[in-house]
Amino acid sequence: MNWAVIMAGGVGERFWPLSRRKQPKQLQAIVTKRTMIQEAVARLKPLVPLSRMVVVTNREQAPAVRRQLPGLKHILAEPVGRNTAPCIAWAVQYIAQRDPQAVMAVVPSDSHIEDAKRYAQVVGAALELAGKENILITVGIQPSRPATGYGYVQTGKQLAPGFWRAKRFVEKPDLATAKKFVASGDYRWNAGMFVWSAAAATEAFQQHAPGVWQGVQGDYAAVEKISVDYAIMEKAGNVVVASGDFDWDDVGDWSAIERHFAKDAAGNVARGPFLGVDTTNCILMGDGKHLIGTVGVSDLVIVHTPDATLVCRKADAQKVRELVKQLPKRNL
Amino acid sequence: MNWAVIMAGGVGERFWPLSRRKQPKQLQAIVTKRTMIQEAVARLKPLVPLSRMVVVTNREQAPAVRRQLPGLKHILAEPVGRNTAPCIAWAVQYIAQRDPQAVMAVVPSDSHIEDAKRYAQVVGAALELAGKENILITVGIQPSRPATGYGYVQTGKQLAPGFWRAKRFVEKPDLATAKKFVASGDYRWNAGMFVWSAAAATEAFQQHAPGVWQGVQGDYAAVEKISVDYAIMEKAGNVVVASGDFDWDDVGDWSAIERHFAKDAAGNVARGPFLGVDTTNCILMGDGKHLIGTVGVSDLVIVHTPDATLVCRKADAQKVRELVKQLPKRNL
Repeated sequence: MNWAVIMAGGVGERFWPLSRRKQPKQLQAIVTKRTMIQEAVARLKPLVPLSRMVVVTNREQAPAVRRQLPGLKHILAEPVGRNTAPCIAWAVQYIAQRDPQAVMAVVPSDSHIEDAKRYAQVVGAALELAGKENILITVGIQPSRPATGYGYVQTGKQLAPGFWRAKRFVEKPDLATAKKFVASGDYRWNAGMFVWSAAAATEAFQQHAPGVWQGVQGDYAAVEKISVDYAIMEKAGNVVVASGDFDWDDVGDWSAIERHFAKDAAGNVARGPFLGVDTTNCILMGDGKHLIGTVGVSDLVIVHTPDATLVCRKADAQKVRELVKQLPKRNL
Repeated sequence: MNWAVIMAGGVGERFWPLSRRKQPKQLQAIVTKRTMIQEAVARLKPLVPLSRMVVVTNREQAPAVRRQLPGLKHILAEPVGRNTAPCIAWAVQYIAQRDPQAVMAVVPSDSHIEDAKRYAQVVGAALELAGKENILITVGIQPSRPATGYGYVQTGKQLAPGFWRAKRFVEKPDLATAKKFVASGDYRWNAGMFVWSAAAATEAFQQHAPGVWQGVQGDYAAVEKISVDYAIMEKAGNVVVASGDFDWDDVGDWSAIERHFAKDAAGNVARGPFLGVDTTNCILMGDGKHLIGTVGVSDLVIVHTPDATLVCRKADAQKVRELVKQLPKRNL
């Protein structure tokens, strides 16, 4: 039967001050009115019933996950985050025990996809193919720009319409390389969405990452911190790329917001009361009532929450992590 | 006897969002821990007892003035603001009725003076001189820079040590003219501080501004909106400039803040919790608890209050007025 694994363990540092340890990005309504994890669940519902969805999160976030997803039956709460390989290995074992014939989609909880219909078609076709073949499918997103922050996967021989053998993985290339990849037409973003049968995933873990596979049954904190890409995808010979020809945005930081909201005549994107004088190309995120007033500024991200305010140059939105890392040192 | 008139009717638009109609600049602790009007009263106390101080304010602010100045006996609450001439005419009449021999210092409530000792010496000497001569004294501040936002007064013949006849008034000169004034050594800032006897002031108003003088007894709203400089000082022949050789800052907008606080190594001035990454030369005004975090910004003023946040380019701090003017239109 079809299952889904939704990975929701991120701490969302780059969305400070909206995201906090207990309320990270995936549990926030950042782009739509539903939280990102609610959107992830809604997108999968045409393919998988809620009763066969497994959310892997951490102990701090589990209560909020339960609140946001009433009716969810399977929550795995990691005692500590160990990157994606242990998290996925645990979920695969959990599902295989309940349904050895299972086929599953493994997806992040914190990416935004507008075209949910095309998404369901692609993932649906992948689930079907993964039910017949001993393969590990990764959804390769058609790149819309030479992003240097993503991993890429090169497609090889076509297997079926919309599916190719994977030729090689490349982690975060430099800009020149990324441009070549985009121009070549046979490189796609490795967006962290996987489809496989419980049997194929079990075999891959046992062969390429036996330490992780066995480790998750014991002391979770002692398991290697490793991504599923490094642990199995880059090593396995049976990896297939599905054509992810839908929009996809990992909403990596505050600057991503403006890709999803209407701008005013001055290029500003505002949520909540805002009044700007000589203000252009800013992103303004308030709560419902608090007013943000600006004079003579451009290209800023301004975020108000009840206990903290962020003012950040849009181009430096990634660096919000650095600020968050300093908070505990300063007792803030 | 010595009296004092403290003018406290301003609305303080440029200190939004800290200042509001009912809590304008003079009723806020902006530079020191006391509010600006409390500082103004404290500075005058060596010369004038609280029982002979008259605060002219407006009806909205009067309750806050009473709260901040316990023991104050004389509050004149204008029904509407009509600039300084009507306000001063009213106060002069009020004092003359109680003490026809009165000599008074008339001062704004919202300027900052560090050297209170020298201030008291200068104003004390002016009160003494004004008690003997039929003159209108304005305190001329030694200019520290070629400011274009102030009025200047040129000094003429010396009358006594530290006192000269006034030669002419010049309102807000252009930069080239202001530079000439500063270089010449005989132009001073007209800081809106006056000293005169009730008799001399009465005569000046009756002669040069009889409409204002009589008008304030009737329908206040019908009185001409005019400054005391235009109404009497620029017309009278008996104006004297006192040497205001003390520091003086009208704290005109948020950018003035950094002249009065210590800067950190990156040139930032912060009140309240602040954490900056790649942040230089900013002014950060929080309340006690709310955290302001910044990344990659320079030369900004950031002010947090419970219901509004301002983010303003420091060089545009004057334009906060424009923002405030738009608030009612937008129902904010």
